[in-house]
Amino acid sequence: MLLQLSTWPEVESYLQHSPGIIFPIGSTEQHGPNGLIGTDAICAEAIAKGVGESTQTLVGPTLNVGMALHHTAFPGSISLRPSTLIAVIQDYLKPLVRYGFTRFFFINGHGGNVATLKAAFAEAYAYLAEANLPRADQVRCRVANWYLCREVYQLAKDLYGDQEGSHATPSEVALTQYVYPDHIKQAQLDPAVAPSGHPIYGATDFRQHYPDGRMGSNPGLATPEHGRQFYETAVKSLSRSYLEFLAES
Amino acid sequence: MLLQLSTWPEVESYLQHSPGIIFPIGSTEQHGPNGLIGTDAICAEAIAKGVGESTQTLVGPTLNVGMALHHTAFPGSISLRPSTLIAVIQDYLKPLVRYGFTRFFFINGHGGNVATLKAAFAEAYAYLAEANLPRADQVRCRVANWYLCREVYQLAKDLYGDQEGSHATPSEVALTQYVYPDHIKQAQLDPAVAPSGHPIYGATDFRQHYPDGRMGSNPGLATPEHGRQFYETAVKSLSRSYLEFLAES
Amino acid sequence: MLLQLSTWPEVESYLQHSPGIIFPIGSTEQHGPNGLIGTDAICAEAIAKGVGESTQTLVGPTLNVGMALHHTAFPGSISLRPSTLIAVIQDYLKPLVRYGFTRFFFINGHGGNVATLKAAFAEAYAYLAEANLPRADQVRCRVANWYLCREVYQLAKDLYGDQEGSHATPSEVALTQYVYPDHIKQAQLDPAVAPSGHPIYGATDFRQHYPDGRMGSNPGLATPEHGRQFYETAVKSLSRSYLEFLAES
Amino acid sequence: MLLQLSTWPEVESYLQHSPGIIFPIGSTEQHGPNGLIGTDAICAEAIAKGVGESTQTLVGPTLNVGMALHHTAFPGSISLRPSTLIAVIQDYLKPLVRYGFTRFFFINGHGGNVATLKAAFAEAYAYLAEANLPRADQVRCRVANWYLCREVYQLAKDLYGDQEGSHATPSEVALTQYVYPDHIKQAQLDPAVAPSGHPIYGATDFRQHYPDGRMGSNPGLATPEHGRQFYETAVKSLSRSYLEFLAES
Amino acid sequence: MLLQLSTWPEVESYLQHSPGIIFPIGSTEQHGPNGLIGTDAICAEAIAKGVGESTQTLVGPTLNVGMALHHTAFPGSISLRPSTLIAVIQDYLKPLVRYGFTRFFFINGHGGNVATLKAAFAEAYAYLAEANLPRADQVRCRVANWYLCREVYQLAKDLYGDQEGSHATPSEVALTQYVYPDHIKQAQLDPAVAPSGHPIYGATDFRQHYPDGRMGSNPGLATPEHGRQFYETAVKSLSRSYLEFLAES
Amino acid sequence: MLLQLSTWPEVESYLQHSPGIIFPIGSTEQHGPNGLIGTDAICAEAIAKGVGESTQTLVGPTLNVGMALHHTAFPGSISLRPSTLIAVIQDYLKPLVRYGFTRFFFINGHGGNVATLKAAFAEAYAYLAEANLPRADQVRCRVANWYLCREVYQLAKDLYGDQEGSHATPSEVALTQYVYPDHIKQAQLDPAVAPSGHPIYGATDFRQHYPDGRMGSNPGLATPEHGRQFYETAVKSLSRSYLEFLAES
Repeated sequence: MLLQLSTWPEVESYLQHSPGIIFPIGSTEQHGPNGLIGTDAICAEAIAKGVGESTQTLVGPTLNVGMALHHTAFPGSISLRPSTLIAVIQDYLKPLVRYGFTRFFFINGHGGNVATLKAAFAEAYAYLAEANLPRADQVRCRVANWYLCREVYQLAKDLYGDQEGSHATPSEVALTQYVYPDHIKQAQLDPAVAPSGHPIYGATDFRQHYPDGRMGSNPGLATPEHGRQFYETAVKSLSRSYLEFLAES
Repeated sequence: MLLQLSTWPEVESYLQHSPGIIFPIGSTEQHGPNGLIGTDAICAEAIAKGVGESTQTLVGPTLNVGMALHHTAFPGSISLRPSTLIAVIQDYLKPLVRYGFTRFFFINGHGGNVATLKAAFAEAYAYLAEANLPRADQVRCRVANWYLCREVYQLAKDLYGDQEGSHATPSEVALTQYVYPDHIKQAQLDPAVAPSGHPIYGATDFRQHYPDGRMGSNPGLATPEHGRQFYETAVKSLSRSYLEFLAES
Repeated sequence: MLLQLSTWPEVESYLQHSPGIIFPIGSTEQHGPNGLIGTDAICAEAIAKGVGESTQTLVGPTLNVGMALHHTAFPGSISLRPSTLIAVIQDYLKPLVRYGFTRFFFINGHGGNVATLKAAFAEAYAYLAEANLPRADQVRCRVANWYLCREVYQLAKDLYGDQEGSHATPSEVALTQYVYPDHIKQAQLDPAVAPSGHPIYGATDFRQHYPDGRMGSNPGLATPEHGRQFYETAVKSLSRSYLEFLAES
Repeated sequence: MLLQLSTWPEVESYLQHSPGIIFPIGSTEQHGPNGLIGTDAICAEAIAKGVGESTQTLVGPTLNVGMALHHTAFPGSISLRPSTLIAVIQDYLKPLVRYGFTRFFFINGHGGNVATLKAAFAEAYAYLAEANLPRADQVRCRVANWYLCREVYQLAKDLYGDQEGSHATPSEVALTQYVYPDHIKQAQLDPAVAPSGHPIYGATDFRQHYPDGRMGSNPGLATPEHGRQFYETAVKSLSRSYLEFLAES
Repeated sequence: MLLQLSTWPEVESYLQHSPGIIFPIGSTEQHGPNGLIGTDAICAEAIAKGVGESTQTLVGPTLNVGMALHHTAFPGSISLRPSTLIAVIQDYLKPLVRYGFTRFFFINGHGGNVATLKAAFAEAYAYLAEANLPRADQVRCRVANWYLCREVYQLAKDLYGDQEGSHATPSEVALTQYVYPDHIKQAQLDPAVAPSGHPIYGATDFRQHYPDGRMGSNPGLATPEHGRQFYETAVKSLSRSYLEFLAES
Repeated sequence: MLLQLSTWPEVESYLQHSPGIIFPIGSTEQHGPNGLIGTDAICAEAIAKGVGESTQTLVGPTLNVGMALHHTAFPGSISLRPSTLIAVIQDYLKPLVRYGFTRFFFINGHGGNVATLKAAFAEAYAYLAEANLPRADQVRCRVANWYLCREVYQLAKDLYGDQEGSHATPSEVALTQYVYPDHIKQAQLDPAVAPSGHPIYGATDFRQHYPDGRMGSNPGLATPEHGRQFYETAVKSLSRSYLEFLAES
């Protein structure tokens, strides 16, 4: 059930039996020579829709732009500042909590979002309490990174070993190939496996150390069929996580 | 050409021949008993993709949540505060201007966004100049409301006359029916034409005066075939507008 | 009745019979070679005082500086950023709502203020509700542009036709001449009618396209006697608007 | 020379021979049973115009609303938050520094503004440097409190002794009587001299300790003739201060 | 009793008999050729601990970095912007007021903090009321500058006369020598007494006028024994001030 | 070498041979029935001083208050909002980068700081670049959590096994006992090992699930001698980390 494809009376009904909502959050950032700029949003959205279907849960619109300041030396990357994303999350939560939502499950496709999301949740809990919303004390937010699900991680290791890397990975590229089989890009990957190991600082430093945008990965290994496996594994794993989140005391 | 489905080297190439980018911006807000909550984003996104194709222009990810604070007494509506949206627009523009983009065309599906977008453009122009970006003085932003295109407006008048109204209109509902024919909602519309004429203030006041969310409209008149006409009319009209925007001295 | 010339017990008494207050809002910005930098504030203030007298309404102090970032390539122009003006409006409203004011009528002299004011009203309604002020849900703000009153617009058309233009117009210049007959400026206007038609972007772009600051206008046509007519027409028209605003259900 | 009554070419000329501008800043706040709510702005504006005339200096529009949060338990008082006023000052300075102004002299009528103004100046100096404005390092701001000029202070002591008090003082009330002789208010002052000595905290606490708004003052002693003396004394004293400020190495 | 060395149950007990807490606030800024960068924090912290002991009052952690933007042309100086410090103070107060603290006594070692602290207190009082905290109306904050205590001031005058100056003073240097006898710095002070009299503007201007960082002072006069006297005098004086603050009606 | 105990000429000299500075960051928050509220700051500060000595590195003043909003249902806890901490970090970095510092090593004692610090670093890198600071692109920040050093973690496991827990742990309590042997608190710990496993949401929820503040820990196992071991292990491990950070290409 997608919020965007629902009417407000349908949401009102939904709230009779569930206080939970899922938000996909991605990023709009370079993913190496052959990865799509929307990779993180595409993956998060596809998996969130799958989890929504399997758990009968409302799925909100995708947060397409996340915290990717370190990628902004590569054309096409866009980012919110952390303080902007904190404000955005607060704005999302305020009306939803007033309607009765208290469980927010963010299915995330981008490692760079995690820190800011956690900061945003903390700031939101405190603000909701200050604004004296009735259910403020019951609000719970969770960020669930699809690529860190144990089974997903294992699958990536089995398929790619060390060539999975940590950005523009074959696993995420595979998933976008599964979702958008007509947009599989060919690119000369030189070297086959990108450099790795340098920590993330500012945008210019990032590009100096990761000149084509990849971090230790070989996305040339990706196939749409792998993507299907990642999709199904992630949906299964995160559906279970979501239900546990909802059932938490 | 969609930014989300492009690679960064493709964006780099694109910038060799065009400084323009299109962003669809919608809203996540109630659209009456049978209108989709994502109506404004769905319409803006569909039309933006059409304009992008017809003009060979890069289309960025959809801004799904806009300024809809006045709708937040209806479950499911989400809004950014104006000051948050101003920050978001600034964040989007900063890296894009650094890459070389200077023409930003926002195809908008929600009247409530217009004021804040205009404010955001003004604040962004000033900030970009303070941050000493090379092309700051050449940056131009435009908000293009598909529903106000002369030909679209005329079509709505021809098809619905006074029953077009100003929110949850048959024209926008028709367009969503064309885009999502499997998500056409049935609802008892009582009365057939909703109340109208009360100005927009806060969320509670809005709901008191517009109890089912519609403003002077009869979305029961919408058909997917109408939606196709609106789509084609809007794409044609806004493609022309975009090219004029790009060609402006 | 001017707030600045009242005592607090007088305001307390006033609130017994009216929840309304009028705020003039102008701008401090270039108005071409012979227009006063304070034109928008002078016009708004004069008309607001007239409306206040004719409707027995409290008139607050003039907001002299508005949103005029696009004029800031001309010496003497000052502007608030939109996000600052949003904060200012929120600050004004908070105590006034606590005292019992719920109807805020902004008589505006500057087109560039409108978008930001509308954004500010939306943000204020939401914040007042979050701060749990007793009458937050009843607060209503209105921006009334004196130059767009139907009768004013018609008068300008009758007097100046196409030479009215859209900035540094003969109508507003005339009004300042009526209010400040000792400060009528002479200036060579070359050409008699300024360029027009270029949209408003950033400050540098504005000055490039409107080199002397005027937009399509010939303020050389202005006379103090015209100014008197504009004043009287606007006061009459906005007095009616204000009373309708107050009487709204 | 008033900025509001000047044209932009006149400002351009002015900058050829002076980098200085004067801003009156007041407040919109209760001034006891018979003091005008606009007292601080009225006094600051009148004196600033006088100083402007005697020193041939440009005088900007009056900042009518200052930092008066502690007065907001009395109907009619309005205040900016300190952080808003800091933003306002920064916004004022940015374009003016770009035009060539580097000496900002704020003639102030309200003690509550001083701390925030000083904080605002510090924040503005730093921001202007970060925005790389050409003359950022030469910018100097000064707050000049008319009521603290040595000669003014002496005059108040001579005329009123201990009954001058510290808010809604006979000296400031006298000055408003001189400026607005038609708006002299009569009020029963009970007791003749208000309580004094309690420090300023929040708005509710303030009203509890100063129930009619006065602080240790007897504004019943004010006369328009006193007002004239205060006006002339302050203009003379601050004109000298301004010229010294301008001449500082 | 130090907050940092207490447990939460001890704080809970403390609140049974006192609503007061002391915060030392200093600065991290240059103090001339031989003054410690932490001088203001060291002095404030030492004295606050003394006052806490003598009055049985809880002492919170030291605010080590204050508002010192004008010192930031000298290596090692750090500063918060005023608007940041305002946010910090608000954040400190919110939970403490919720626990039951209503008397906040800031023992301050840096003149540059005073304006921003006063602004911060005003903003905090207002915000606490908006957030509807139970005791918001009873909250009182006080800034107590140890160097301005009458007895301290007299002692400095007796010991140093005109060579006390106003920054990097022998009195504060002496106090740090008493607290950190192993960190007494030797430096050639040339001239013995630094320049004085230039007002404080931005950082670059400050360094131009005060090239070694001192303002009218001769810190070469300082001795640890003087420091002991300043310490004892200040503790005695501020203990009395704190108790009066607590006893205020 | 402590910044607080240095003079500005000493800092100037230091910068000739090193661009690095260490900041201890802790928190002011409940640490269970017998843990000190300042635990995280005490640990971070002690270790930072040790690392500073062993590596000849400048150590800045301790950030005593961090992001601990989830602890604010326990008396005595204080927290910055994440957005405030982001502003604080930006303020710290701006002048230091201007002086020549480019390597910032935050020795952290509180898990709740990590997300916000990472967000703050990202926002700071971007802002420094916008402010056009000379070395903006070379700035690198690192958060180093002493309790997560491999050798420290192993020691805690060896000493306490499962009773280490994740908040108010015996390891951190031991370290404070080593640093402040005179402030060892006795408290009945009931149960000996606190509950664990519940995720962290808002403050009220936290206290409901962790009624005495501990999370899965038994701080009754702590001894000052353990503390010494933790101290030495952490200093050794983080000294190595710091030097590697400095040597990074």
